[in-house]
Amino acid sequence: MAAHTEYLVFNTKDRHEFINITERVRDIVAKSGVKEGLVLVNPMHITAAVYVNDNENGLIEDFEAMLRNLVPPEADYEHNKTGEDNAYAHLWRTLMGHQVTMAVTDGDLDLGPWEQIFYAEFDGQRQKRVLVKVVGDK
Amino acid sequence: MAAHTEYLVFNTKDRHEFINITERVRDIVAKSGVKEGLVLVNPMHITAAVYVNDNENGLIEDFEAMLRNLVPPEADYEHNKTGEDNAYAHLWRTLMGHQVTMAVTDGDLDLGPWEQIFYAEFDGQRQKRVLVKVVGDK
Amino acid sequence: MAAHTEYLVFNTKDRHEFINITERVRDIVAKSGVKEGLVLVNPMHITAAVYVNDNENGLIEDFEAMLRNLVPPEADYEHNKTGEDNAYAHLWRTLMGHQVTMAVTDGDLDLGPWEQIFYAEFDGQRQKRVLVKVVGDK
Repeated sequence: MAAHTEYLVFNTKDRHEFINITERVRDIVAKSGVKEGLVLVNPMHITAAVYVNDNENGLIEDFEAMLRNLVPPEADYEHNKTGEDNAYAHLWRTLMGHQVTMAVTDGDLDLGPWEQIFYAEFDGQRQKRVLVKVVGDK
Repeated sequence: MAAHTEYLVFNTKDRHEFINITERVRDIVAKSGVKEGLVLVNPMHITAAVYVNDNENGLIEDFEAMLRNLVPPEADYEHNKTGEDNAYAHLWRTLMGHQVTMAVTDGDLDLGPWEQIFYAEFDGQRQKRVLVKVVGDK
Repeated sequence: MAAHTEYLVFNTKDRHEFINITERVRDIVAKSGVKEGLVLVNPMHITAAVYVNDNENGLIEDFEAMLRNLVPPEADYEHNKTGEDNAYAHLWRTLMGHQVTMAVTDGDLDLGPWEQIFYAEFDGQRQKRVLVKVVGDK
């Protein structure tokens, strides 16, 4: 079994950003040389999520509107009594599903026609990492 | 390491359906010959989810009622301005957790007493695929 | 490829508990001897979740408050007509993301600075198991 690990680094301009990372993950899969296996894409910070959905800007707005509606950023949170203001970001990333594991088949990401991998940053403007680990057979 | 990939195909009669796919995944695990490893079960379309929970019809109704309450299908969504009417289905599938990775032990799915794997279709009546990938040692 | 499987057992005093299991998972990774691979941490009961987030008590209260707000325990649920009273616990565990797969790098959990693995029990006071499966190369 082969394993290949890389860490994507993000430092977003805005506090909230949705970034399509499909091609970056695809490049890492190619570089790994793995032909058959799995790739884990896991944000290493706990106010960000990695999820799979459509690359459509309206839908991205709908995701943020849903999160604002279900977990309002300006509500009272116990976590914010520690001096933080990002409690909602911890909760949002959990509702988004936080991480994905995708298939590698014939040396490439095995995606459906509209599956795209997104990094969703909910407390940006500082350096964050996303772990990409490919495991499988060359 | 061995890898075995299959694609389940669904074309549901109804727009929303919850289908127990545990035995189909189990059969693929058996066919793979893998004795120790992991199996990824990932819907390849972005308005469907794969999740693990109880095989009880009342609970399935509760899941749909929860989703309707949190993300009403008939609300206004930006995504629907592209001509779609399925924005809510993209959001529902995300709240459901979208995909699962399960253990393969002694050549079988390693499940707790009530763990069952479900395919949840939220925008059906057309052909959809679910990727099942088993990786591990024979 | 090597595989190592263990089952953590919990029998919580309270109905709802959030338990940091990071060190227990780390110990299993060490025991497995796997240097490069993945570790699946999956609750085998369907009213519990495993998730990754901050080890901060205020945030844990925020998680439970969010779940109570989105899916009130005392509401009417179809599942409870079977004689159960835990329908909300099945729904909560799904919103929490239910399971995680983490990376093993250089023989240890490959975690960001605040990533901690939690077991969230929503219907405790009886014996429950969590499957931890490490797969990879020694």
